[in-house]
Amino acid sequence: MVSPSTFLPFFLFIFLHFTSSFSNFAPPSLLLRPEEKSSIDDSGQNRLYRTNYFTQILDHFNFNPQSYHTFQQRYLINDTYWGGAAENAPIFVYTGNEGNIEWFAQNTGLILESAPRFRALVVFIEHRFYGKSIPFGGDEDVANRNSSTLGFLSSTQALADYATLITDLKINLTAVDSPVVVFGGSYGGMLAAWFRLKYPHISIGAVASSAPILHFENITSPYAFNNVITQDFKSESQNCYTVIKDSWQQIEIAANKPGGPEMLRNSFKFCKQADSETIKSWLYTAILYTAMTDYPTAGNFLNPLPAYPVKQMCKAIDDPTAGNDTFAKLYGAANVYYNYSGTATCFDLDDDSDPHDLGDWTWQACTEMILPTGGNTKDSIFPASKWSYGDRLSFCKRLFGVEPRRTWITTHFGGHIERVLKRFGSNIIFFNGLRDPWSAGGVLKNISSSIIAIVAKEGAHHVDLRFSTPEDPKWLKDVRKQQLNIIQDWLSQYYQDLAQN
Amino acid sequence: MVSPSTFLPFFLFIFLHFTSSFSNFAPPSLLLRPEEKSSIDDSGQNRLYRTNYFTQILDHFNFNPQSYHTFQQRYLINDTYWGGAAENAPIFVYTGNEGNIEWFAQNTGLILESAPRFRALVVFIEHRFYGKSIPFGGDEDVANRNSSTLGFLSSTQALADYATLITDLKINLTAVDSPVVVFGGSYGGMLAAWFRLKYPHISIGAVASSAPILHFENITSPYAFNNVITQDFKSESQNCYTVIKDSWQQIEIAANKPGGPEMLRNSFKFCKQADSETIKSWLYTAILYTAMTDYPTAGNFLNPLPAYPVKQMCKAIDDPTAGNDTFAKLYGAANVYYNYSGTATCFDLDDDSDPHDLGDWTWQACTEMILPTGGNTKDSIFPASKWSYGDRLSFCKRLFGVEPRRTWITTHFGGHIERVLKRFGSNIIFFNGLRDPWSAGGVLKNISSSIIAIVAKEGAHHVDLRFSTPEDPKWLKDVRKQQLNIIQDWLSQYYQDLAQN
Repeated sequence: MVSPSTFLPFFLFIFLHFTSSFSNFAPPSLLLRPEEKSSIDDSGQNRLYRTNYFTQILDHFNFNPQSYHTFQQRYLINDTYWGGAAENAPIFVYTGNEGNIEWFAQNTGLILESAPRFRALVVFIEHRFYGKSIPFGGDEDVANRNSSTLGFLSSTQALADYATLITDLKINLTAVDSPVVVFGGSYGGMLAAWFRLKYPHISIGAVASSAPILHFENITSPYAFNNVITQDFKSESQNCYTVIKDSWQQIEIAANKPGGPEMLRNSFKFCKQADSETIKSWLYTAILYTAMTDYPTAGNFLNPLPAYPVKQMCKAIDDPTAGNDTFAKLYGAANVYYNYSGTATCFDLDDDSDPHDLGDWTWQACTEMILPTGGNTKDSIFPASKWSYGDRLSFCKRLFGVEPRRTWITTHFGGHIERVLKRFGSNIIFFNGLRDPWSAGGVLKNISSSIIAIVAKEGAHHVDLRFSTPEDPKWLKDVRKQQLNIIQDWLSQYYQDLAQN
Repeated sequence: MVSPSTFLPFFLFIFLHFTSSFSNFAPPSLLLRPEEKSSIDDSGQNRLYRTNYFTQILDHFNFNPQSYHTFQQRYLINDTYWGGAAENAPIFVYTGNEGNIEWFAQNTGLILESAPRFRALVVFIEHRFYGKSIPFGGDEDVANRNSSTLGFLSSTQALADYATLITDLKINLTAVDSPVVVFGGSYGGMLAAWFRLKYPHISIGAVASSAPILHFENITSPYAFNNVITQDFKSESQNCYTVIKDSWQQIEIAANKPGGPEMLRNSFKFCKQADSETIKSWLYTAILYTAMTDYPTAGNFLNPLPAYPVKQMCKAIDDPTAGNDTFAKLYGAANVYYNYSGTATCFDLDDDSDPHDLGDWTWQACTEMILPTGGNTKDSIFPASKWSYGDRLSFCKRLFGVEPRRTWITTHFGGHIERVLKRFGSNIIFFNGLRDPWSAGGVLKNISSSIIAIVAKEGAHHVDLRFSTPEDPKWLKDVRKQQLNIIQDWLSQYYQDLAQN
């Protein structure tokens, strides 16, 4: 039997099912689906940002002939509110993560919304190998061909890209003294924090939202991630937790009965029959990503979802009208994630189309991003299981012929870095929402007077960075207010120092 | 006419004469010549250190198949005084620079001499591509073949080597909580400072001696380096300065007279005739490196030299018995540098044998280490000239087919980093001796309460790091005492923090 322990959830929407197939249930056309505050107009043009390209070097740390090759790196820019170079007005930069930068711009409204207050220039930089920032002539087929080309995809190269692009941009704008604040969510948040640490001369501060920088090696328990998901559902109702927890075995049993697969197809409204592993993966995805995006307002980050979607899922499960039909209840729960818009007539489990660059994050997860998540204690909402590095290793060898450098991230960026930062560095905000399973690997305590942890027990995955809505709860407004006030302090300090130079 | 402006002095002993030949006058067998406190015994074995090798990865920042290749990196280790892992006794690491690590160990006695006080383990790590730490199977011919192999030689790779080696060493010694302090002189000092900044989780502090981290782009004037040399000689006597300053033209005139070359050969005791450019290079080298190593005690860093060699040179020039014979005076001065041991019967200017890896520093100077030195104002002891990036560019294109990444060092490590460090980072000592031309690009003012500049107006190139001698002047003893007391404070703070964790 395959347990969900062998599933490997990655940051946002990526889902690997190692032992059987390679599945991904992110809905198609996610990027172009209209958001509440869509930045894309009817013609597919970005309304909020101007798109630019920067000629970026392929390998910053090597000087062999291939390293000098270049590629076009995309960035989005909005100077509507910028005070300009003459007043050294600030530059707010989003350090792009594993996906199309348009999508992050759509889901990171805080920066643009705060730009008028700070008279800030806003820039979103796309991560190499994602979106339209593809090396090797922009040809994805070449870039993703094998480890010889994918080898240039790494976090350190991405950070050096940002350093190079920002430095060049400031020179071009004759704004060398404009302070830069970096922002990022999830892996982008890790990049923002690391950028501040590695390039303090380029960025005066970083807002690292839901950045699990402590989720490497043995620093965070491999059970912690799914423990948070378990708690999320348990906190809604004990019954909700129990029904989901028991469902894995029930699906397995049903699938192996005569007529079972057809029964499951009908119960879950699949377009066609599916095996039990595929069904469990499908359900697991819905539960995981609903927990991660358990926002207090309706949203469309990964999928269109109602406000408080975990509550909605549990409401479906706890629905007294569903009686004792577990699969009907689970269908109702899954429907919250997969069909909130109500347009689907049946679910196509074979549809693995994905607007993001799944393969490329998988590459990162096979080289340096070894985050041990996915283990399950006996109390987990998923079947008990252990996280196994061996599984990752054999998967990566099989898929790419590559062996992960398991200790590289902690060697390069630090493991228990929070102990170090007590006496080193400054000006970082670590935000975490405790509903978010990634909070398990986040910085949850203040480190020093200027390296601050903001923790929202009601918060989910980088909820702080989202566009505001009239329905935002007070705690969320307070979090944002606190962040912006801290940024204000960084800037004031910077201008004071500048005046003394 | 070729002016000394076209010469490019590098860190220690390397001397490029661009427009004519590619010359180097460092004496042969420098490394094996007995020092006052030689670490090499009669059989060529190192008496002070045990030699180990670490299997190092070829490229830390890329994951293509070639990046996974490995090489053997040499390091020297002395655990005589180490308090051991049980007491978390400290580890003092020298971050090797552009040469054989044995040589740096011989010329960096401070670390070993202070080890008993701190019960420290002492480790000297060799820089990739130098000494015996040669990638590509240890085959120098392959490693130095062209830009495809030399491409892996960079400061960032070297720093990542140190991070990886130290991390592994600590695990092997079960000494993960032992604090590491890094030391380095010259380029090694730059590496030590940068290591503390980029890897604060690995090193609790850095002693960066004579590290010209501000000698990039337009931060430090290209005239500053030779201005220091000018002042060094002027401070001995105005006559000394004037004789040397006038000599360049006199050599040129003499060389173009009938019988001139033979006269010059006799005056300078060259083994055979030399052209004026070669003679000027030869003299320039002596003046430059004597200024750099103007130590208060007799030494043998680059060449065997008396105490206060600049004074000795000027004494030869000011010698009233030499009358008006400028060349006899210059011969006397050059003799201080080239023949202090008195064994040479004539000088062989064609001898460009060198125990160091000249070509490899040239590679670094052609890729990222673009330090604009060598310009001369009209008051310079050398002929007036401008530093030209174009000269460097064309030289590097011709020699390696490579174009320097002129702004990379400031992008990656910071340009005016001292302004940034006021609010970021901690625990760095920058030592500079003002007799040392490299002090022109050093940090000469305290940056914060724990990023300290120690400046010795009588000091030369990383004199603080040298083995102590009974003749050391009080100022030098005081400098070392101050450094060790600061290190003591870092360690106390560290142990206090550790106890609270």
